[in-house]
Parts: sequence; C-alpha cells; structure tokens
Amino acid sequence: MDSIGVGLIGTGYMGKCHATAWGGVKARFASVIRPRLEVLCDANEDVARDCASAFGFLSSTTDWRDLINNPAIDVISITTPNGLHPEIAIAALEAGKHVWCEKPMGLTLGHAADMTKAAEKAALSGVKSQLGYNYVHNPAILHAKKLIDDGAIGRIIHFRGQVDEDYMADPQLPWTWRCKIENGGLGTLGDLTCHLISLAHFLIGDIARVLADQDTVHKERPLPGGKTGETGTVENEDMAQAIIRFGNGTSGLVSSSRVAWGRKSMIRMEIHGDKGMIVFDQERMNELELFQATGDKATRGFTRILTGPEHSPYREFCPAAGHQLGFNELKIIEAAQLLDSIAGKGSNWPDFAAGQKIERVIHGIAISATKGQWVETS
Amino acid sequence: MDSIGVGLIGTGYMGKCHATAWGGVKARFASVIRPRLEVLCDANEDVARDCASAFGFLSSTTDWRDLINNPAIDVISITTPNGLHPEIAIAALEAGKHVWCEKPMGLTLGHAADMTKAAEKAALSGVKSQLGYNYVHNPAILHAKKLIDDGAIGRIIHFRGQVDEDYMADPQLPWTWRCKIENGGLGTLGDLTCHLISLAHFLIGDIARVLADQDTVHKERPLPGGKTGETGTVENEDMAQAIIRFGNGTSGLVSSSRVAWGRKSMIRMEIHGDKGMIVFDQERMNELELFQATGDKATRGFTRILTGPEHSPYREFCPAAGHQLGFNELKIIEAAQLLDSIAGKGSNWPDFAAGQKIERVIHGIAISATKGQWVETS
Amino acid sequence: MDSIGVGLIGTGYMGKCHATAWGGVKARFASVIRPRLEVLCDANEDVARDCASAFGFLSSTTDWRDLINNPAIDVISITTPNGLHPEIAIAALEAGKHVWCEKPMGLTLGHAADMTKAAEKAALSGVKSQLGYNYVHNPAILHAKKLIDDGAIGRIIHFRGQVDEDYMADPQLPWTWRCKIENGGLGTLGDLTCHLISLAHFLIGDIARVLADQDTVHKERPLPGGKTGETGTVENEDMAQAIIRFGNGTSGLVSSSRVAWGRKSMIRMEIHGDKGMIVFDQERMNELELFQATGDKATRGFTRILTGPEHSPYREFCPAAGHQLGFNELKIIEAAQLLDSIAGKGSNWPDFAAGQKIERVIHGIAISATKGQWVETS
Amino acid sequence: MDSIGVGLIGTGYMGKCHATAWGGVKARFASVIRPRLEVLCDANEDVARDCASAFGFLSSTTDWRDLINNPAIDVISITTPNGLHPEIAIAALEAGKHVWCEKPMGLTLGHAADMTKAAEKAALSGVKSQLGYNYVHNPAILHAKKLIDDGAIGRIIHFRGQVDEDYMADPQLPWTWRCKIENGGLGTLGDLTCHLISLAHFLIGDIARVLADQDTVHKERPLPGGKTGETGTVENEDMAQAIIRFGNGTSGLVSSSRVAWGRKSMIRMEIHGDKGMIVFDQERMNELELFQATGDKATRGFTRILTGPEHSPYREFCPAAGHQLGFNELKIIEAAQLLDSIAGKGSNWPDFAAGQKIERVIHGIAISATKGQWVETS
Repeated sequence: MDSIGVGLIGTGYMGKCHATAWGGVKARFASVIRPRLEVLCDANEDVARDCASAFGFLSSTTDWRDLINNPAIDVISITTPNGLHPEIAIAALEAGKHVWCEKPMGLTLGHAADMTKAAEKAALSGVKSQLGYNYVHNPAILHAKKLIDDGAIGRIIHFRGQVDEDYMADPQLPWTWRCKIENGGLGTLGDLTCHLISLAHFLIGDIARVLADQDTVHKERPLPGGKTGETGTVENEDMAQAIIRFGNGTSGLVSSSRVAWGRKSMIRMEIHGDKGMIVFDQERMNELELFQATGDKATRGFTRILTGPEHSPYREFCPAAGHQLGFNELKIIEAAQLLDSIAGKGSNWPDFAAGQKIERVIHGIAISATKGQWVETS
Repeated sequence: MDSIGVGLIGTGYMGKCHATAWGGVKARFASVIRPRLEVLCDANEDVARDCASAFGFLSSTTDWRDLINNPAIDVISITTPNGLHPEIAIAALEAGKHVWCEKPMGLTLGHAADMTKAAEKAALSGVKSQLGYNYVHNPAILHAKKLIDDGAIGRIIHFRGQVDEDYMADPQLPWTWRCKIENGGLGTLGDLTCHLISLAHFLIGDIARVLADQDTVHKERPLPGGKTGETGTVENEDMAQAIIRFGNGTSGLVSSSRVAWGRKSMIRMEIHGDKGMIVFDQERMNELELFQATGDKATRGFTRILTGPEHSPYREFCPAAGHQLGFNELKIIEAAQLLDSIAGKGSNWPDFAAGQKIERVIHGIAISATKGQWVETS
Repeated sequence: MDSIGVGLIGTGYMGKCHATAWGGVKARFASVIRPRLEVLCDANEDVARDCASAFGFLSSTTDWRDLINNPAIDVISITTPNGLHPEIAIAALEAGKHVWCEKPMGLTLGHAADMTKAAEKAALSGVKSQLGYNYVHNPAILHAKKLIDDGAIGRIIHFRGQVDEDYMADPQLPWTWRCKIENGGLGTLGDLTCHLISLAHFLIGDIARVLADQDTVHKERPLPGGKTGETGTVENEDMAQAIIRFGNGTSGLVSSSRVAWGRKSMIRMEIHGDKGMIVFDQERMNELELFQATGDKATRGFTRILTGPEHSPYREFCPAAGHQLGFNELKIIEAAQLLDSIAGKGSNWPDFAAGQKIERVIHGIAISATKGQWVETS
Repeated sequence: MDSIGVGLIGTGYMGKCHATAWGGVKARFASVIRPRLEVLCDANEDVARDCASAFGFLSSTTDWRDLINNPAIDVISITTPNGLHPEIAIAALEAGKHVWCEKPMGLTLGHAADMTKAAEKAALSGVKSQLGYNYVHNPAILHAKKLIDDGAIGRIIHFRGQVDEDYMADPQLPWTWRCKIENGGLGTLGDLTCHLISLAHFLIGDIARVLADQDTVHKERPLPGGKTGETGTVENEDMAQAIIRFGNGTSGLVSSSRVAWGRKSMIRMEIHGDKGMIVFDQERMNELELFQATGDKATRGFTRILTGPEHSPYREFCPAAGHQLGFNELKIIEAAQLLDSIAGKGSNWPDFAAGQKIERVIHGIAISATKGQWVETS
C-alpha cells in the first residue's frame, strides 16, 4: 500500500488535532504509509469547506455517511460529541474502514460493548480500531513502560494516580450539557479519570476491582439563558476517588477532579516498585522521575530524566534532548502507531476491546461510589 | 511562676529532641516560663548519667517513678516505647504533673481511652496533656491554617494527603518488633498515617468515617538471629489507603506507605477549596504552595511561599525569610506552646482528647480495610 | 494574496522544522495566507525527492538557484550550513523573494553586514527577511514581554541569562568541523549564546557593551579517522561568559557552555525589576515564574504560571491551559508571524538588521575575552 | 580538658545563634568538650542580664574587656557590628582566648591583615581562630565537597554562583548605615558575596583573579528622620558580578544582589565537572542535585539527593533522612568543629588566614568594577 485515504469527522479541537496529525505524520515518521487527506465532514457546510482548505483535505461534506460510502477512504477519524461515537464507529467498521475514535467510547457500558463487538468482527478482516488515549504515546510514558518491563523498579507493589483540572472549578460557570446524566453519562470519570485508567492499564495491567466515593461540589449552577437566580442541577460527579486492586492483587489509588483550582492538566502518577519508584506528571510531560534502590546510598535520590532521542520515538521530532515535545505531537505518534498497525507492523493500543476495559473501570467506580462496596471491573 | 521543673523519660532520638527543646526554648521564646532541667530517666544507668550531663539535666535516674514523686518536677516528657506510654502518662497526670507524650498514645484504642480519661480528670485541676504531633507546629502549617480560616481558598471541598517513607522498603531488612501486632499495634498507620490525620484534623476538622484498604507487601522477613532462609511473618500493614469524609461531609483521601522507595519524609497534602488550593510537602517544610482564583487569569498560578518572619513563630528563630527552619525546631515550638498553655496563655493542641480522635481514625482504617465497608470514626 | 509559494533549502533537522511549520501553519492560524509547498532543495537528489514527497512539496531539486529563479516561489527558507547563508540569502533577496533564514547569519560580522544591507534594500520593495530565533516566539516569552511592557515588575534593573547544553561535554567525542575557526566561526557563542542574546534584545533592549572571558575546556579531541592517540585541536570556545550593559545602562550577565553535563536545552533567564522578577527556563518552556512585590507579604512568592489560552498565541494550538506546547510548534508561530508580516499585518522580529545586532554582541564577547576589556557592541 | 568556658559578645540575631549553638552542641555532638556558658556581654545592661538568663549564661557584663580578662573564659564569640571585630578579636587572641568571629572580618583589607597576623601569632600557642561562614558546614555542602574530592564529577571545569536577597529591594526603604562606605565598607559584596566566595574556596580552591562590574540601583533613599523628599545617598553597591579564574585556571562567574525581589536566601551554585555537575541552592538547603555522565543514557538526569544520616554530620541531628536540618543548626556544627579543633581533633575552616583570602576577593571585585580590568586576588 503506497498511500491511504483519510476521512475526518469533526472540526473542533480534537478534529484539528487529528487533521494536523494526519497532515504531519509522514514528515515525522518516514516509514509510515502516506496519508491522503480525502474528505472532511462537519455538520456546518461553511465550516466544513473552510476547514478542508485550511487542513489540506481535498473535499468536504456535511453528511458523515458520505465518508462511509467513499471507496477512496480507508480510515476514518471520529471526533464528534461522544453520543454519536457508537453509530458512526459501528457503521464505519461494518463498511471495512479502519476507525480512530476519540475517547470515551460512548455514554454507556452498552455502547462500549456494541462497539467492541463490531470491532472484533471487523478485526477478522484486518480492520483496525483505535481509541484516542493520547497520553500513553508520550515517549516519557513509553520509557516508563520499558523501565517497568525491564525490572528497573522491581516488582510493582502500588500505584497512585490523580488527574485534575479546573475547568468546572468556578461555581459561577453556567450549567451545560456536561452537567447532565443521560443514559449513564459520567462527569469527571468520563472526562478525566478514563485517561488515568488508560495509563494504569498500559503500564501495569487491568484493574480488577474498585472501592469508591464521589462528590458533586457545585450542586446547582446558574442557567445560561435563565433569569437571575435560576439554576440547573448538576447531575454527575465533580470528583471521584477509588481504591483499586489490579488483577494480580497489587493495590492502588486513583482520584480525579474537574474542580481542582490551579490544575490545568495534572495527570500525576506514582508507580511504587520493590526496587524503586517512577513518578510522572503530565504538566511536565517531558520529564520522568526515577528512584532506584541501587548503588551508593549517599547519592541516591529521584533522578529527573528529560526525554530525548534515547526515548523512542522522540528522535523523530528532534535530534536533541530536552527540547520538549508538545501535547499535539502525541497525536502524531498515535497516528503513526495506527498506520504501522494497518501496515502489519506491530499492534496498536488501545483498540476497542482495551477501551471497553477502561470503561468498565470508570463505570465501576460510579457504581461502587453509590454502594459503598467493592465492585468487580474485569 | 518564674521557672518550671522538667523531667524527661527516654534518651533515644525523641528523648534528645525533647531535651534540646527544653534546653533551647527560653532562648527562642523570651516570654515563656524558664524550664529547669531537673531529672533525666533512662533504664540504663550509664546512659542516664552521661546524657543528663550532655543535655544539661541536674541529675539522672533509672526509675521513672522517681520523676512522678519528685516535687521539683512540674512537667514530664515521655519518649519511651509506645507500650509504656499509658502507665507512665496516667501516673504522671494523677500526680498532678503536666505530661508531654510522644505519639501514638498507646497500642490500642483502650489505651487511648484510659489516657484521655486521666487527662480530662487532671485538666480539672489545670494539668495539661500534650501529644508530640510536631508537624502541626510548623510555621508553614500554621500559616496554612490561617489562610484557610481567613477564607483565602474559600470553602474546603476536598483533602488529599499521603505520608511515605522507605524505612521498611528493603525486603532484606530483618524482622523486628515493629512487624508484630500485639494487642492491636499497627504498622504504617501507627507510625506514619497518624501524623497525616493530625494535620487533617488541625487544618480542616475531624474525620467522621473512612473506607479503606491495606496491604502487606513484604509478608516475610529474614529473622535477625535465624539460620539462612528462616523468616518471621510481618503481621501488620506496610501501606494503607482510605477514602474519608469529614464531619461536614467534605470528601478526601489519605494514604501511607513505609515501603515507598525514595521517600524520606514525604507528608504531602493538597487542600482543595472552592476559591483556591494549598499544597504542602514536609520534605520541603519551609514552603507552601498557594493558588488563588483571583486577579488576572494570565498571571495566576501556584505561588511558592517561603516561610519567614511573616509566618509566626518563624521570627523567633530568624529575622530573615527563607533561611530555613529544621525539623528539630518544630519541637521547640511545641515546648513553647505547652509552656504558654501552662502559664494560662492560650491552649495547646493536640491534648489527649484530640489525640484519641486521631487514634479512632487510624484504627478505623484498619477495621474498614478488613470489612471493605465504611466505618464511623467519630 | 490568496496563497504563497514556498521553497525550502535543506532537509536536516531545521529543514524538517521549516517543512512542518509551512505544512501546518494554516491549520493552526486560520487567518494567514495559505502556503503552497512548491519546491524542496537538497544537494542529494534521492533525499530531495523522498523528502519532497514526505513533506508534501510538489517537486524537488538539487540546485538552490532553481528556487531563486522560480516565479511560483515567493518565500524561501534557508536551512543550509551557516557558511552558505550569505550567498543564498542575498541572491534570494535580490530576486525579490522573502527570506526565512536560520541563525546565525553567517560566519563573520562581514557576512551579517552584507546580508543586512541586502535585506534593507529589498525591504524598500516590501520584501521581508527573518531569522530563525525560535525561542522568542514562545507564548511564555511573549507573555513575559507583555508583563515587562505593562510594568508588572517595574523598571528593569538587571538581567541574568545562561544557555547550556552538553553536546560537546564528552571529552572523547571526536573532533568535527564545529571545532574549527574559519573566517571567524564561533563555538558556543554562535551555537547557543546568540539565542540568549535574541531573548535579551527582545525582552529588554539592545546590549551596548560587554566584558568577557571564554575557555576551551577540551583543547584536543580524537581525530575521527585518525590512528589511536591522534588528536585535532579545538580552535573555538567551549564556554563563554560576559558581564553586559544594555543601552540604558542596565547591568547584566550572560554565560553559556556546550560542555555542561546534564543540560539539554537550558536557557535560563532572570529578569530583575524594581517591583518584581521574572524567571524562565526553556527546559520547562511552558512555565513562567513571576514574583510581584505587591499585596500581603505573607502570601508573596514566585508564582509558576502555566501557559494557556490567556497567553497568545497558545490558543491556536489548544483551548485548554497547561497541555504543553512543544519546541517544534514555536516554528509554526514563527512562520505565522512572517506570513502576517508579508500580508501587511504587523512586523516580524528579528529581521536581518536585528540579527546583525545579535551578531555584534556575540563577536564582541569573543573580542572582549581576548582583550580583557569592555567592548562596545552597538 | 573536661569543659571549656565560653564568653559571648552580642545578643542580636547572630548573638542568639552563637548562644544556642554553645548551649546545644554537647547534646548533639556527644564527644565534644562540654561548653560552660560563663559570661554574656551586651552594651545594654538590662539586655545583657535578661539574655544571660534566657540563654543560660552564668553572668553578664556591659564591657567586653571583662571577658578578655576573665580566666574562666577560654573561647570568645564575637557578634558585634563589623567595625568592632578587629579590636576585640585581636585583644582576645593576644590574651590567649580562642576566637569565633562573625564575618566579614572588618571593614577593610587592612583590618583583615591585622586580624590574620594576630591569629597566626596566637596559633603558635595553639589558639584557634574561626570565622562564621556557616553555610560551608551544611551536610549537603560537606557531601558536595566529598563528591568533588572523590572525582564523582571529574575534573572541575567551571563554577557559577549567585547569592541574592531582597532586603534592600524596596526603593522606599529608608537610608541606613548599611548604605554608607566608611573606610572601605562594602554593600552586597560584604553582606552576601563573601558567603559565596567562602563556598567556592571551600569546594574548589582559591580564586586568583576577577573581572567585575557593580551597580547601585537605588542611588538615593529617604532619610529616616528627614522631611518628606529628603534623601541620603547610597554609597555602596546593590549588586555586583564578576568573572573569575581560580588558581589553576578554572573559569567561573559569581554575582550577587541585595535588591533581588523574591529571593530570600538564594545561594545557588553550579559546579561543572568534565564527568558531571553538582547544583545547590541554600533556599532548599537539604537538597543536592547531582548529574553523573555514567550508565545508561536513557536514565541519566539530575538526581535530587535529600540529606540524611549518610551525609555527615546529619546523623547527629536526626537518624532519619529527609527530615530537614535548619539554618540555625549549621551554627551548632560550626561550634562542634571549633571545639574539636581546640581538642586537637582535626582542623577548623575558615580560620582568619582563610578569611583574609575571601576578603581579598570581595575587595578585588570592587576594585575591578571601578577599573574595568582583571585584578589579582591571591
């Protein structure tokens, strides 16, 4: 295969991320199949046309089914609102298109199951599915994974993670659709926690059970078009915390908040081993802290590793260490992984089956928080 | 009262801390009653005599009852092994001596109850009790308390805390008495977690219920005098984590580990408010991080406050900011607080009643970890 | 002008940076003129052809003069070895092409003067010149500039800067052409210091005189093809440090090293004002530290500002703060600035005249280091 | 010698530091000679008497000559204003008393020479002199010294240091005696820079020549008792910066400012070696950062070492790492070093001869700043 036809649905922030990833991936990863940017889809005709031109797509449409039916398109990026993911993804997979879908999968565990079923069926014909858990593609995280697999910190004995932002911290922010539970839509669990779970699963393994609590701090918010004093009820959680156990019994802790003032993209993890520890924070995504219980005790400490060409695939972006990759470049790595997987070089993670496991954990946390008891998640 | 007679029991690390606090407090806090270092007690006669000379005590003894019966002694510091705390403290209180006892109170909740009962009775005659939760006396913590009380971060909506050390992280460390449960003796909960609870209670209020898990990572350890391969069983927890709720419903999370490689004295707290956040880490005990959701959004961020004369009682130790207080100096502040309380100037915290509440939480965590259910702790 | 034809010379690291900037700028900055990637030039025919395909250029060539003569090309990126900059840049300017040239300008002050003369002449016809000092385009730096101009730290009273890497730190690294002075080629001054000077000039103003020292730490290096023990002499400086004065008399200090073990991309600056201070380090390029001598003394400290949508043009890359831009994205901002300048929207900095001032400073430092006396640089 | 008689002159901040060091040293360092706190001297009779009681001295006086003449006194601490140092120190040395004098030595190089001469003469009879450069006694610094001596970072190739505070940063601070040059009294050089030079000399060796600049930022300050608008002239430097060369040719850079907003006790050093780097900042005095160019490149980075029992003499203060020593405890280590030296166990640094070398550097910087040329300092 010399080149591959790409269709993209959505032109919001994530749409732009996918577009620039598709447009830039070949310049960074010389060996991937060359993407041809075929059709861009947006519900608004003008937006679709203008963005197609700006992003370098050949044409535009307002109907996502045009992409499904277009024989020039081999792979479809889905960056629509979450509620639309299942229908589009399943249709695309059934039409034999590879699918790169933003997280979370849908609104309910049922959605995740349906999508996984479709992906598993399509996989029999070599069709790939991939979910947009971009943080796992960071060279710092890939290196953490390598260190763990190489035994650099010994047997993993504990995991602590938190993911915090402050996008809902202001109590005066008006009520939005994000505040509403509809068919199981989650709050911070669906927006933020799922990213942390993707990292935990990627680095350590599947989470088997959870014991949780959650809280809605700002229970009422002003209605945007309402009269002074009119408020809407926030139906889903502002924060959630869970004690966890992995499949092999390893203990851990995850928490997240969308009302954590001052936090912008904190995804902080501590991975405790019986020979060392690894610490990471997405707000300093080019750094990894490593403690190893070896050598002279007087010179031990946490080493701040700055990512560089030693940490694949950083080298594709810069030959000099410490120059800093950005969040958007993780999306390019994600695209490269999918293209290589399509070309039969390696596998891609997380596919829909792996994504379904992540969904089981976040929905399990919500259930445990209600029951006050351990809930099995695998 | 012009001066006050001091007796000290114990010459280990904490004994030395109390001795240097008693010896140095008047030079730092000019207004406190002047301590007279009367008698030092240690089970070993030579140690008692040598330390008395080095620490500046007038005489020494091997029998702690000599201190109880000595009319020149007004206040007694207890730094013995935890199991001896109850008998000595109760005897001292009954003899009308003020008591400054190291934490935790004893081995069981029953011990804590007995000690509290004795302290409450003695308090009727103006006798003071105090527990050695030194971290709450840090000017950085006192300033955090002031900020919270002044509303600098608004209503408190969440608390996250962790306390980690690595003193048991090496699996080859031999089995010790610390590994044994006897009449309810705890592991990391008794050594470390209790400090975090003291801070949470001091800064925010009493914890009302907990939902917990715990784990013993290194279940067997080599016996010190044993043959190769002989091991002893570690009966108590290496790590514990708990979801908490304060009395007013505020949610939170606490965790601790004595097997956390690389951590030496990490006591890290995040206090989330609806107008800001405060972060503290004991490994950088002279710093406080503060985020306030006010002013120009483009210049907001976490401010690293270095403690100085603006943060009482730092000024007693140094007129210049940022010069750094040390852990041992917290003990001097603790002594000053007790002396002022004895002199009728202000109250001292935590007394035995406050200490009992801390014990209820750590024992509650152990119980919840076994049951997998919420346990009431107040 | 609806679109603009781009020619690029060079396919090394900086060539790729320019290519991806040209390819991605329109997706990020919707209002810029749309670049058409016309011709890519590389001395090696296969490389030129393959890169043209990967980078999205229409065709390729091995002769840079083809670009000069191509009427479809309006702007030329020059990323060749430094010694070739003058000839190509001057030819391009004379042909009426806008020029985006990597730093430094050439090897000597004479080169810089010739290039500036050509640029000034071309500017009369509206032709733009721009030098690749990418660090000044960082939203954190642009915000620092705004803070300074708004008086957030008062009158500037001092500047301290350092730029350190370790790419020549290993004494066993073989001798290369970088070690050779030929017609005035500099070492760390030309590679690293010039970036720091660009930042100082951008943020504060032109440096008027310098008092300097320099040192070559590793005076001999093994010859790559030589016999064991054969070495080549390192003719230029491994490190340089200079006391500086700006035009208005403000004092400062700059230093740099290419043999600073552990430093990967440290460009650390302290800007001292009479009402505050700003600190920046390129190794954490998404952060700015700000101290302001205002408000309650007890809550003052350095505030760590994470760049976000409040800091233009971060918003073009991500709507959420703290998600981290990368080094390569600075190059996109640089391209956008040039495109806007060509379209008559705002000016672009640094053009060749501004670049010549930077060159005067780095060459002035080399001269002062030899003389041990102040040298005028403006 | 079973015990040693101590006299102390001065009760200000440094007086209190010496007092608590003398009072606490034996409890921390069991093997030192036991100090007897004999006489405290202060010009104010009430202050002298009250402080003697609070600090634990047997008696007090208002005449420093009483201490010189008192046969019970063996060692004298001098913490008076700098101008009085020479007369008192020389008289004490001539009377055979060991002298522990605060820095700087006096106001002029002549003072330093006279004091050194007296100390060298007294040394022939075993009398010790010591200057209060407390920062060199930090276990972190002692460990840095050990690492350097052990070759952990190879041959030293460069030194960068800065020492900044903001005690004169506010332009509205009234004029004080500190602003006045009288017989050569320096500004920031005498207050701050000298500490940095002590560290450079201790860690690396003597500085041989300097090339410097200095600046007075706030040239006029309001007169404290004056009418509105009346000002006094600031005669000495607010900031100074110097390029340096050590005796062996190693290059370096030192700078300091007393008008650096936000800095409270920044003494930041980078020690560049040809195999690694060490970084230290006094504002985090319990940490040392170490980079070593060894092992797997993918795990290299700066290691943050927290001081602990592995770093002598931390263990005397606490058996657990990371618990944090404080600034005042450095003074106890200083006292212990002097006591051991008096007892014939090891030498003490810096004595007056070593102090004179430090003074040559700071006065050399002031001279070079005027001349704009290199000045020899050894």
